[in-house]
Amino acid sequence: MYENLAIVGATGAVGRLIRQLLEERKFPYKTIKFLATKRSAGTEITFNGETHIVEEMTPESFKGIDIAIGSTPDEAAAEFAPWAVAAGCIVVDESGYWRMKEDVPLVVPEVNPEAIQNHKGIISSPNCSTTQMVVAMKPLHDAAKIKRVVVSTYQATSGAGVVGEEDLVEGAKAVLNGSDYEYKAFKHQIAFNLIPQIGGPKYEGYTSEEMKMVYETRKIFGDESIQVCPTCVRVPVTNCHSESILVETERPISAEEARELFEKADGITVVDDLGAGEYPMPKTCTGKNEVFIGRIRKDISCENGLTFWCVSDNLRKGAATNAVQIAELLVRSSAAV
Amino acid sequence: MYENLAIVGATGAVGRLIRQLLEERKFPYKTIKFLATKRSAGTEITFNGETHIVEEMTPESFKGIDIAIGSTPDEAAAEFAPWAVAAGCIVVDESGYWRMKEDVPLVVPEVNPEAIQNHKGIISSPNCSTTQMVVAMKPLHDAAKIKRVVVSTYQATSGAGVVGEEDLVEGAKAVLNGSDYEYKAFKHQIAFNLIPQIGGPKYEGYTSEEMKMVYETRKIFGDESIQVCPTCVRVPVTNCHSESILVETERPISAEEARELFEKADGITVVDDLGAGEYPMPKTCTGKNEVFIGRIRKDISCENGLTFWCVSDNLRKGAATNAVQIAELLVRSSAAV
Repeated sequence: MYENLAIVGATGAVGRLIRQLLEERKFPYKTIKFLATKRSAGTEITFNGETHIVEEMTPESFKGIDIAIGSTPDEAAAEFAPWAVAAGCIVVDESGYWRMKEDVPLVVPEVNPEAIQNHKGIISSPNCSTTQMVVAMKPLHDAAKIKRVVVSTYQATSGAGVVGEEDLVEGAKAVLNGSDYEYKAFKHQIAFNLIPQIGGPKYEGYTSEEMKMVYETRKIFGDESIQVCPTCVRVPVTNCHSESILVETERPISAEEARELFEKADGITVVDDLGAGEYPMPKTCTGKNEVFIGRIRKDISCENGLTFWCVSDNLRKGAATNAVQIAELLVRSSAAV
Repeated sequence: MYENLAIVGATGAVGRLIRQLLEERKFPYKTIKFLATKRSAGTEITFNGETHIVEEMTPESFKGIDIAIGSTPDEAAAEFAPWAVAAGCIVVDESGYWRMKEDVPLVVPEVNPEAIQNHKGIISSPNCSTTQMVVAMKPLHDAAKIKRVVVSTYQATSGAGVVGEEDLVEGAKAVLNGSDYEYKAFKHQIAFNLIPQIGGPKYEGYTSEEMKMVYETRKIFGDESIQVCPTCVRVPVTNCHSESILVETERPISAEEARELFEKADGITVVDDLGAGEYPMPKTCTGKNEVFIGRIRKDISCENGLTFWCVSDNLRKGAATNAVQIAELLVRSSAAV
């Protein structure tokens, strides 16, 4: 039984959402504690009607804890996860640090729930831009085997944290008032502009964010033959990442078949009526836990291609929701034993 | 000799830019007149230091005119162009009405200047999203024959006219103030949002804007075998369209070769240093006449693929600049005779 929980990075934007989701989804637990780095320790938070003081994370914090859900910067995750594992606690980690390590399953519950069984104490949740894409790919891959993906992203500023959201709002005010604003999360003005770079240079002109979409996708599907060509772009949208996705499959899939597959799939909501002006948009998908798909159509440039538009709340399914779903999987699997 | 000019739709956003470009580029002329529909007739404008009154366009307006540059809605173009042709005037038309008609060359001077010779009185300038893409495609197509293009656009609100720009500014103010705003050019909120639809449903789930990128590209290159899969998205950016473009060529092109080809090509400026955070962005490309290219890299999902990011001022190269360049071609070709 997993009944003693810790939330690490409890005061961040994703940490706050994790707390909210645990309440909403009535996550079962006996005890819960909230941890953070020294800077945020001491913060008072309310959870399920009770007041808690956020504690500074130390090796001792994890004694007696069964599951720790972490949403911290990479450096903090590199530090706390081994403490937790040493204390016999299973870590569900949202950071980038553990995702590609051998022996660390990278899990999206709609795609590869079975992978959690192979954990050695740490289970990773993928990067936001990967998660919504693999949820969308899953039913198509099962039906017709995806060989190649071409994806262009339209990523919200909340992906760069609270400071990213602030940059957009304050930057937009400055443009509209004709005043100056110094950006904190971004290298360039993001208000009324686009920045075709997320992360630093990583491989052959691709950024780290782009290569995450390549490596993580292969790891999640357990298929090194899936080819991915990503372009990641920051757009002046506060929340929800959008992706223009083209997949090529081993056998052709019609738009009608794809729509049926998407409609039956776990975690996907289809919104697709072009004539009526209905398709997923950041404004309509924010605050929701699913992956939304629209503009489903045959790729008219390739027999075996299919293209569609995919939007999801990057702080929820792209982060908090997926981590909580992994923890739920753990709880269910322990109940089944 | 072409020495008597008319500017039709002289008071619109593109019309204003055409006037400005004719001044800047010292376009040669003896007489010039400014025409518009009844609604805008009577407006006073200054051109090369002289005051002109905008006249209502009628069949008589085109008597003695050699070249008419038109930037009007489709219905107005359908009406005035035959009047002009009947009067012996050559029309350079920016509207969508004539582009795909047989006997009407569709011209981008960097790509198919020779096509102007086949005109029967009307020469069309392509849709903004097509123009910048074909300029970018040209050197690659010449070097290695493009077989397929996958493109996702990030299109500015100025593409929907002055009302589109206003919608973004007023809509953004409303969001920031917590007040309401009724959008005029767009079906949905565009401020801090994305709309994955430009134009109405046209073919198999693709919009009219998307199919323009297919049909116009084939016509401009005179190659019906070029396959194009477009996704057109409106983004909360005031001016400059951006495009994430992937091309597949008959023989592979390396990123280095592509960079050299782009650097030597007419009308293209390469801005490509990811490590230094340098790439084209709407904010840095607005007010410029060229097509800007960055993020040049091998498609890591396909041997013969190449991918890059392309930004251009949709009101300039996407409209006014291209039309003025066509008129300059006409003037040069008549001088050569």
